[in-house]
Amino acid sequence: MNPRYFSFCGGNDGPWVVTETRSETGEPLPPVSRLMITNGHCDQPDGGWALHGVVSNERYVMEAEKRRLMGEQQGLGRPASGCAALIPIKKSEAWWGLAQDERREIFEESSRHIAIGMRYLPAIARRLHHCRDLALGEPFDFLTWFEFAPEYAAAFDELLGELRATREWTYVEREVEVRVGRA
Amino acid sequence: MNPRYFSFCGGNDGPWVVTETRSETGEPLPPVSRLMITNGHCDQPDGGWALHGVVSNERYVMEAEKRRLMGEQQGLGRPASGCAALIPIKKSEAWWGLAQDERREIFEESSRHIAIGMRYLPAIARRLHHCRDLALGEPFDFLTWFEFAPEYAAAFDELLGELRATREWTYVEREVEVRVGRA
Repeated sequence: MNPRYFSFCGGNDGPWVVTETRSETGEPLPPVSRLMITNGHCDQPDGGWALHGVVSNERYVMEAEKRRLMGEQQGLGRPASGCAALIPIKKSEAWWGLAQDERREIFEESSRHIAIGMRYLPAIARRLHHCRDLALGEPFDFLTWFEFAPEYAAAFDELLGELRATREWTYVEREVEVRVGRA
Repeated sequence: MNPRYFSFCGGNDGPWVVTETRSETGEPLPPVSRLMITNGHCDQPDGGWALHGVVSNERYVMEAEKRRLMGEQQGLGRPASGCAALIPIKKSEAWWGLAQDERREIFEESSRHIAIGMRYLPAIARRLHHCRDLALGEPFDFLTWFEFAPEYAAAFDELLGELRATREWTYVEREVEVRVGRA
């Protein structure tokens, strides 16, 4: 098994209580009560859902940006991070058909994706998982997992609002927001 | 199943006769007599091997380069393409730890990977498959499949020699060359 492979299982089990599941764009996910994250594979629970993704190398971040990110960001699992969110996203074929420099230009020079995220560090920690190139067809291209202390919940909403207003987000075909809190 | 997922099965079956299997760097693959390519999954044949990969979006190619490539390249499966090669490659952790601009600089500005490949178009057709981010740990990061007419076999050797002399190739930890001909 790939050690960078993770599963997010929505069902009746797991250490995260689901407080809200909402479709931002496109088809929703069935509502569930709990979320379990596994480093490895988990099958779809009855009546729930299982999403899978792999942590991978940087696709757009440049060396200077990476150095700044590494200096600012903190890891997952901080004791104060009682809130979290899973945001699965699918982008359009038009996005994937663009060349690397066209995607980078939209992602950062136009949409400031890295710069926006940077402003919320270290309060909001995140881990990105890629799904588009798994063998079994996955319904999303990315799963982003965010963790933060309850007092940063409003800042997190602001971060999402900023990203969703960008040119990059015009390529998002499906987006679901799963908000959770520690049980 | 992901429609871009392919399997390369080395064993006793398949339309391609293996003429040579050679390790360029690192651990070899067991020698087999035939190669079968499946759009989908195949398990490892007895005494042979199965390698899997997904065709994905461009990671380094810029818009102007893409336009030139699209204008020059021809597809797989040409009747004259009686020769082919599968070249599985694994790059080092040092490569994958680099930021996007550092990898692009080595890949093209320093190593001329795209420019070198372009000089052999349309004679040598290729399809790249990504393996590093599959759920089941794969032994390689990439599988490149090349097809060409027998009269371009020497040109193909030249192409491989040019690529292997680049700075990019100092990051290659394992490389196997499987040469085949149509049965």
